[in-house]
Amino acid sequence: MQRPEPQEFARVLSSMCTEPHPAARAAAERFLATNPGDPGTYGTVADLEREAVDLLGEVTRLPDPTGYVTSGGTEANIQAIRIARNRTRDAVDRPNVVVPDHAHFSFSKAADLLSVELRRAPLDEDYRADLDAMAALVDADTVGVVGVAGSTEYGRVDPIPDLAALAEEADALFHVDAAWGGFALPFTEYAWDFADAAVDTMTIDPHKLGQAAIPAGGLLARSSALFDTLAVDTPYLESTGQVTLTGTRSGAGVASAVAAMRELWADGYRTEYERAQALAEWFADELRERGYDVVDPTLPLVAAALPEATIGTLREAGWRLSKTGSGEARVVVMPHVTRGALTSVLADLDRLG
Amino acid sequence: MQRPEPQEFARVLSSMCTEPHPAARAAAERFLATNPGDPGTYGTVADLEREAVDLLGEVTRLPDPTGYVTSGGTEANIQAIRIARNRTRDAVDRPNVVVPDHAHFSFSKAADLLSVELRRAPLDEDYRADLDAMAALVDADTVGVVGVAGSTEYGRVDPIPDLAALAEEADALFHVDAAWGGFALPFTEYAWDFADAAVDTMTIDPHKLGQAAIPAGGLLARSSALFDTLAVDTPYLESTGQVTLTGTRSGAGVASAVAAMRELWADGYRTEYERAQALAEWFADELRERGYDVVDPTLPLVAAALPEATIGTLREAGWRLSKTGSGEARVVVMPHVTRGALTSVLADLDRLG
Repeated sequence: MQRPEPQEFARVLSSMCTEPHPAARAAAERFLATNPGDPGTYGTVADLEREAVDLLGEVTRLPDPTGYVTSGGTEANIQAIRIARNRTRDAVDRPNVVVPDHAHFSFSKAADLLSVELRRAPLDEDYRADLDAMAALVDADTVGVVGVAGSTEYGRVDPIPDLAALAEEADALFHVDAAWGGFALPFTEYAWDFADAAVDTMTIDPHKLGQAAIPAGGLLARSSALFDTLAVDTPYLESTGQVTLTGTRSGAGVASAVAAMRELWADGYRTEYERAQALAEWFADELRERGYDVVDPTLPLVAAALPEATIGTLREAGWRLSKTGSGEARVVVMPHVTRGALTSVLADLDRLG
Repeated sequence: MQRPEPQEFARVLSSMCTEPHPAARAAAERFLATNPGDPGTYGTVADLEREAVDLLGEVTRLPDPTGYVTSGGTEANIQAIRIARNRTRDAVDRPNVVVPDHAHFSFSKAADLLSVELRRAPLDEDYRADLDAMAALVDADTVGVVGVAGSTEYGRVDPIPDLAALAEEADALFHVDAAWGGFALPFTEYAWDFADAAVDTMTIDPHKLGQAAIPAGGLLARSSALFDTLAVDTPYLESTGQVTLTGTRSGAGVASAVAAMRELWADGYRTEYERAQALAEWFADELRERGYDVVDPTLPLVAAALPEATIGTLREAGWRLSKTGSGEARVVVMPHVTRGALTSVLADLDRLG
């Protein structure tokens, strides 16, 4: 095979994934040829998956967790909405799910796949779910309510306990999407996890801030009964019944998630969160000093209203930079994003902008 | 990390996955930290994915292929059924899909997810789709017809051109599931691919007989327009619009698929098919000589009516052996399954059986 360059992370400011931790990379390489989707055949990695779920339970304070390692946050979000729909299937003809407007686009995929109406509620002025706006969209056909703990565009955390109460009142499933934020939030003051609120299901992805290799998403549920409506028979496997969305799955992702969490939970993740948060705040200040409007980085993610032409110039200089829906430049301060890199961005801004 | 043993393939007779080709493994390791789901950020692996699709087009004789590398056959099958449903959404209220009874259980998942009725037609006496039985289930609400090219339990190939004609008559999408068989069938006499019949979409998985690392499934479509109904907006990515089921995806799988196909297409796959087919036929003969009923291995997969107790004894001896829905022992002659291993199985049978 020719050797095209694989990913060079030095200038990637746009991704919610990162260079895996060395232990996670080593584990992924050793388990490349295993399939946790066939636990009867691949027993070792099936054991590791149980450990991954237990570790995710520690991170999210769920004592007896059920769940599995998904292909990513999208699968986890789809499956949560599928649970919400399936468990009410006999009672609700035209199910809807109420989400705050910043819910990830995977919920749009879920809605299309599952023929569920997605109701998007406007945010409050601080880019968080607005409880009244959410409540106004809930009705008798609402089967699920979603809260976001670390939004994709601004890193915002919704009022999770309030949303949990809203869901409970509506007798709807309450799902929290902490795909990106889940490995930073334990070190913040936010109320977001299973101990803070009546959360039914949660997405939390080891392959984002968890520093595992792709693909390692996570879906957790408070009760194993929630998975019952997802099972399909698997006639030819050594096991029977399968609740996952995919069939063959990546043992590399599972082993990598376990290795990363063994290595980094809790102190390693705390250290990284503190580094990244401080760096994000510093970068935000530097941008403000240059006269740009900046959305306050309440998690390690900076959105700033750079002119379109400036964003283009930075991209031409090699920076992988994405934009929010409103057009702000968006920098995700992942573990591979260093102070040196952000200093260079500022220098390029000063020189080129 | 402690070092539990990863998979030892020497005694695995039950899996449709295998040890990746060394070139495929090396490529997977190099691209572990890339995400083809975000092509604006991860450009190199996005280019590789286009090459993967082109190579899959060569294998399946589709000159101008569209498609992508999926998380596996399940995602590809789900997406095909989603296309079938979505493109007729305005015209059909209660869509159904007609499949032969041996269709993989991922079609049951697809039916549940997509709220599509799955109609399973009984097989003929040779374990292939029965055209009359399939036709009897087709009606005005049929949006898809599925043919299997290499069935999971017996390795059978359905009459693909006849099923294509049936689908065409019904104005339904015609999908072929060649997830496992796709890298063996080019070297057989079967009519199964895009040049043989009016196939609209096909599942063909590099991470099975293609010898790529997990996760690398494949979905191909004759026309890019078929994907149009799947697109959702992706506000914060550098690209816009996404038709895949998952979001973040595995660059390792993509790079690995390209490396395997560059290395093995066509002669390497032919050599392996010929080896495996000869071995399957030899093993079937050996079992027949011992008095067991054997389903004729028309692809490299042997199903034999061993007594339940014998299967248990072989499993206790360490053989990873699965069973068909009817209870036969099932041996998939993948690249890692050697003549030496099958000779040992026979020796164990003679000694323990």
